[in-house]
Amino acid sequence: MPASITTLDTPCALIDVTRMHRNIQRMQQRMDALGVRLRPHIKTSKCLPVVQAQIDAGASGVTVSTLKEAQHCFAAGIEDIFYAVAMAPGKLPQALILKRKGCRLGILTDSLAGAQAIVDFGQQHDARFDVWIEIDCDGHRSGLRVDDDSLIAIARLLNDGGMPLCGVMTHAGSSYELDSPQALQVLAEQERSTCVSAAQRLREAGLACPQVSIGSTPTALSALSLEGVTEVRAGVYVFFDLVMQNVGVCQPDELALSVLTTVIGHQPDKGWIITDAGWMAMSRDRGTQRQQRDFGYGQVCTEAGEWIEGALLTGANQEHGIITLADATGFDITTRFPVGHRLRILPNHACATGAQFPHYHACKDTGEVQTWSRLHGW
Amino acid sequence: MPASITTLDTPCALIDVTRMHRNIQRMQQRMDALGVRLRPHIKTSKCLPVVQAQIDAGASGVTVSTLKEAQHCFAAGIEDIFYAVAMAPGKLPQALILKRKGCRLGILTDSLAGAQAIVDFGQQHDARFDVWIEIDCDGHRSGLRVDDDSLIAIARLLNDGGMPLCGVMTHAGSSYELDSPQALQVLAEQERSTCVSAAQRLREAGLACPQVSIGSTPTALSALSLEGVTEVRAGVYVFFDLVMQNVGVCQPDELALSVLTTVIGHQPDKGWIITDAGWMAMSRDRGTQRQQRDFGYGQVCTEAGEWIEGALLTGANQEHGIITLADATGFDITTRFPVGHRLRILPNHACATGAQFPHYHACKDTGEVQTWSRLHGW
Repeated sequence: MPASITTLDTPCALIDVTRMHRNIQRMQQRMDALGVRLRPHIKTSKCLPVVQAQIDAGASGVTVSTLKEAQHCFAAGIEDIFYAVAMAPGKLPQALILKRKGCRLGILTDSLAGAQAIVDFGQQHDARFDVWIEIDCDGHRSGLRVDDDSLIAIARLLNDGGMPLCGVMTHAGSSYELDSPQALQVLAEQERSTCVSAAQRLREAGLACPQVSIGSTPTALSALSLEGVTEVRAGVYVFFDLVMQNVGVCQPDELALSVLTTVIGHQPDKGWIITDAGWMAMSRDRGTQRQQRDFGYGQVCTEAGEWIEGALLTGANQEHGIITLADATGFDITTRFPVGHRLRILPNHACATGAQFPHYHACKDTGEVQTWSRLHGW
Repeated sequence: MPASITTLDTPCALIDVTRMHRNIQRMQQRMDALGVRLRPHIKTSKCLPVVQAQIDAGASGVTVSTLKEAQHCFAAGIEDIFYAVAMAPGKLPQALILKRKGCRLGILTDSLAGAQAIVDFGQQHDARFDVWIEIDCDGHRSGLRVDDDSLIAIARLLNDGGMPLCGVMTHAGSSYELDSPQALQVLAEQERSTCVSAAQRLREAGLACPQVSIGSTPTALSALSLEGVTEVRAGVYVFFDLVMQNVGVCQPDELALSVLTTVIGHQPDKGWIITDAGWMAMSRDRGTQRQQRDFGYGQVCTEAGEWIEGALLTGANQEHGIITLADATGFDITTRFPVGHRLRILPNHACATGAQFPHYHACKDTGEVQTWSRLHGW
């Protein structure tokens, strides 16, 4: 195991462990202050030591985006798991295996057809699935509108079919498109009130709806009240990234994930520094493209992590990144950033960039580096 | 091992093996007719059974984008390997290990600094590296212009340092931006003549330059003559993709890679079909965005692979894809594409989509499905 980042091969993914712990503390303290349970979404890290740090700080259970994540967490001793993607009927056998092993697995639906498939499968296999109903709070993706006739019908179908309704959940994914505290507060309140209203509608219809789950990192950090909410699912806060910085919910010194890269050449006439971190390392995510500040494929920092103002990864081929500088007057890029020189790149989107790597290198302030594996695939 | 695709969990990556073999034959026959060696770039598949099919069809050696690919190929008995990314000095120890095991590993540089690092390291370790010089034929990325003063100087530095020059190489990456046979022929000739000119310049300076290597799938399939060229490196032809279709070098029935997905919900008011193939499955590659036809995140086909005209994956979250139809009049999307229904999505960029999966499912015409693992990371 390498003693420091200077011996790591590039490109590789670095976690600044101090920043990560600070990010975890920040979200946990906020949720504690708002009186709700934090059930972190582990789709960002897909990495057990990161998840364990979240649980150690007070998180309760996890949210997953794939059943593979659920299997992995359950094998590590985490029993309370919410698979927060509408259930494909074909995945019910996998869910049943987890359930039979003792996993408290929550599953999700937003349609009568999906609910019927759960009921049918559950009855065939004498299993009671814990089911959530997805509510659409901002029109960005899945879920039922609060006033949708199906809401009550789905809940009744589940109840009558012997599948207990855990509650309602929503995700204000459109928060990624905002960039002012005011707009984020408004959306956070919309997320809260929409989901609480859905629960009330069910309760008024005589149906139990014990839980109300909301969550996106920007709204979780912007909500002034979470009255009626029982839990928050947030994910990317654990590392943050340039998209979140543009949204306005983190500062540059909170970005905990970066890609270590080596300079492999130059095109001096064009001012290009060529590196070994292309899109295979950074991912093709261009999440900052339509935000207030476009960071290309990433913000360039020194090997030690100091932001180099105006230095962006403006181009990316599979294993080639092209760095350009806003101002390169007064020095020669081939001597300032020579072949073999190492840099760090902060990513647009931590979830996408992390996925490009089989493991992270977790860097402590002492200089110690540990290798943490992460999941790939389904 | 599943007997057919109907039992595969989704999302997963499918290879149409018949199409793949046809694509391999097509490129090999073309290279044979043009009288050059084909050294396929395996960065597209990163998968040994695919590489073996290329070699069985007549390919000679491989091109790789990472030293991990080189290690993997060498362990499988492939000895002639060209690592076609400018060498980072820090990777020379890994290259040396491969060389000492008997690998004929070609490495690349386009700078005096890079060449000096190779010479210094080689001399320190009593190793003779086989070195190529990269030429820039279209201004899109790395390499020296033919008239660059450094060209001769780098070759002399290598020669004097005891590192034999294998030859010159170039990659007409800008071919991805074209879409007419005429423009592709012009660029193919530019790629050929530029690289051959670089070799001639070296030879006129009294320096040996045995090899001339060019290659991109669009130019390889468009070149009318490859006089003076000794080998072609092409990669994506093995699967093709929607970007290549837009470039005009393949037909829809040649696209060999697709992602199998399941419908998990709908937003009927918006005409959205929600699937379990989001950007984690498709990648964030939007390569067709600026081409003649924008396919969003992919073209939707039936589970059997039949193109559904006007059906595109127009939106993608991490584990959610949003399919929209150009024309949904006259039917109800929730009954035509119900929850649990399976579809295939053709990707924009096979190299990027393949990378999202730990393995491919190789589908034969008989219905038999094999699991082929692929490399991830560096």
